[in-house]
Amino acid sequence: MNIIIAGAGAMGSRFGLMLHKAGNDVILIDGWADHVNQINQAGLEANFNGEVIIEKLPAYHQTDCQSIDFSADLVILFTKAMQLDGMMQAIQPMLSEKTQVLCLLNGIGHEDVIKNYVPYDNILLGNTMWTAGIEGPGKVKLFGNGSIDLQNLGENRASAEQVVEVLSAADLNARYSDSILSSIYKKACVNGTMNGLCTILDTNMAGFGETTVADSIVESIVAEFAAIAEKEHAHLNVDEVLAQIKTCYDRSTIGLHHPSMYQDLITNHRLTEIDYINGAIVRKGKEYGIATPYCSFLTDLVHAKEQIMGVK
Amino acid sequence: MNIIIAGAGAMGSRFGLMLHKAGNDVILIDGWADHVNQINQAGLEANFNGEVIIEKLPAYHQTDCQSIDFSADLVILFTKAMQLDGMMQAIQPMLSEKTQVLCLLNGIGHEDVIKNYVPYDNILLGNTMWTAGIEGPGKVKLFGNGSIDLQNLGENRASAEQVVEVLSAADLNARYSDSILSSIYKKACVNGTMNGLCTILDTNMAGFGETTVADSIVESIVAEFAAIAEKEHAHLNVDEVLAQIKTCYDRSTIGLHHPSMYQDLITNHRLTEIDYINGAIVRKGKEYGIATPYCSFLTDLVHAKEQIMGVK
Repeated sequence: MNIIIAGAGAMGSRFGLMLHKAGNDVILIDGWADHVNQINQAGLEANFNGEVIIEKLPAYHQTDCQSIDFSADLVILFTKAMQLDGMMQAIQPMLSEKTQVLCLLNGIGHEDVIKNYVPYDNILLGNTMWTAGIEGPGKVKLFGNGSIDLQNLGENRASAEQVVEVLSAADLNARYSDSILSSIYKKACVNGTMNGLCTILDTNMAGFGETTVADSIVESIVAEFAAIAEKEHAHLNVDEVLAQIKTCYDRSTIGLHHPSMYQDLITNHRLTEIDYINGAIVRKGKEYGIATPYCSFLTDLVHAKEQIMGVK
Repeated sequence: MNIIIAGAGAMGSRFGLMLHKAGNDVILIDGWADHVNQINQAGLEANFNGEVIIEKLPAYHQTDCQSIDFSADLVILFTKAMQLDGMMQAIQPMLSEKTQVLCLLNGIGHEDVIKNYVPYDNILLGNTMWTAGIEGPGKVKLFGNGSIDLQNLGENRASAEQVVEVLSAADLNARYSDSILSSIYKKACVNGTMNGLCTILDTNMAGFGETTVADSIVESIVAEFAAIAEKEHAHLNVDEVLAQIKTCYDRSTIGLHHPSMYQDLITNHRLTEIDYINGAIVRKGKEYGIATPYCSFLTDLVHAKEQIMGVK
């Protein structure tokens, strides 16, 4: 299968590498020039569960897509949320009416962007438990096991099943799901609380979770996500979601970690993905006539913090 | 007139000093031992508009009130909001059924505490434009001019008018007001936005005001204050309030200042008065059945920050 990995950071590199090793024709597209150059010069180097492997994979800078002679059967999207539209524009010449697009971005509502480039029936939403780390340009660390659930948003389950087969043949443990939106909303609830709150309060997940007000704040935010999810026929089991969020506070596991948004803004002075998490709930709330004051306030606070820190 | 200044920080010292100079029998009560001791040993020293003056005024530590032989005609309250109840308990032996109590604390709803100690008819709420600074134990800086508006909350305007006279005879420019709650709510709107927001976002007032989200956040918070104020028959001119808040952003005047709550928590690691500003709106919202999500979230965020910083 001809596969574009659109956004070849840690996770994109994992998927690209494993799909390539399984015999697919894979190209990587990314906006990080050093990373692209290193992969083209020396191959993609991965510490793959303790064994160092190097795979020759063609990598392209996002701005060079016009010159690529490639017709994609499948695109796997792994960009940051705010880079999605630019990436879709860049790879457009390689898309056809038959190209399946699998979206694995964090956050919600990305289908509204993707549907401007491919038929709605070709869009697959996914949720993955795989992890990956980047160690430098062209160099990733791929440890542990994972899985991926995906669902076709339209009427094209057959093509989606084919994608499941290709992914599973590459040991990516894919499954077709009938409730991907529920999984995506559940994950978005974790991100929609831990990310913004730890960023604004300048703390790690345990630091927030151990305050006496954590439950009250988290419950208010999750209630807004659940109300929107319900409108989109994605049922959220709120008690289950709250329990999952509480596991983030555990100091003996991940509690002392700062969530990705904290790393983006506070550590690395980069713009956040808040518009695609809590901000998406605010937009959908306006559409559906549902009040979302907590998501709205948190989105505004994170934007204020971005601006106060001079991040653009 | 026998006057207790309950809370003799910068502002309490100003009022105490000016009322003492005008011939009243004034005693100071405070919880800061060094300050009390210094006043008793060397007098209260004030740089009074450029002239250094020293006045011998009796000062007492709050815990020593039992031993004071004093019957108060008037108590002027200048404590921090969270110290109010403790102060009222401490001075109770010096109160009679005729003692007037003038409350000049920041925030709203303090009458609900005070009415446990004196008849409701004896409670005066005030709002002052005087300023003052503390330079060290026993030493204050009193510059500029000011005024004070006050109102009796019950049916005892005559006694309130008498207090106005006593204050004005001490050049404190007092006026009886028929709309003190409106003034107090207006001031609380400024505090209820600038204080919590600058504290959470770790910035000064200009830093917040210059973000693109400032108006949207401030309007949402002020709308909640206005809804509660309306229930208490205190009309708020929202446009006027918003305009006043915007003056805080001006870099050429006060924009580069950090509000008092920021100084309390971020600079000095002290508990904040959030429960008596936004938190009071939340409590009153529950009573009146009015949703106050912005005040609720902001109150919780400030409490989270207090706990994360280990302030108790």
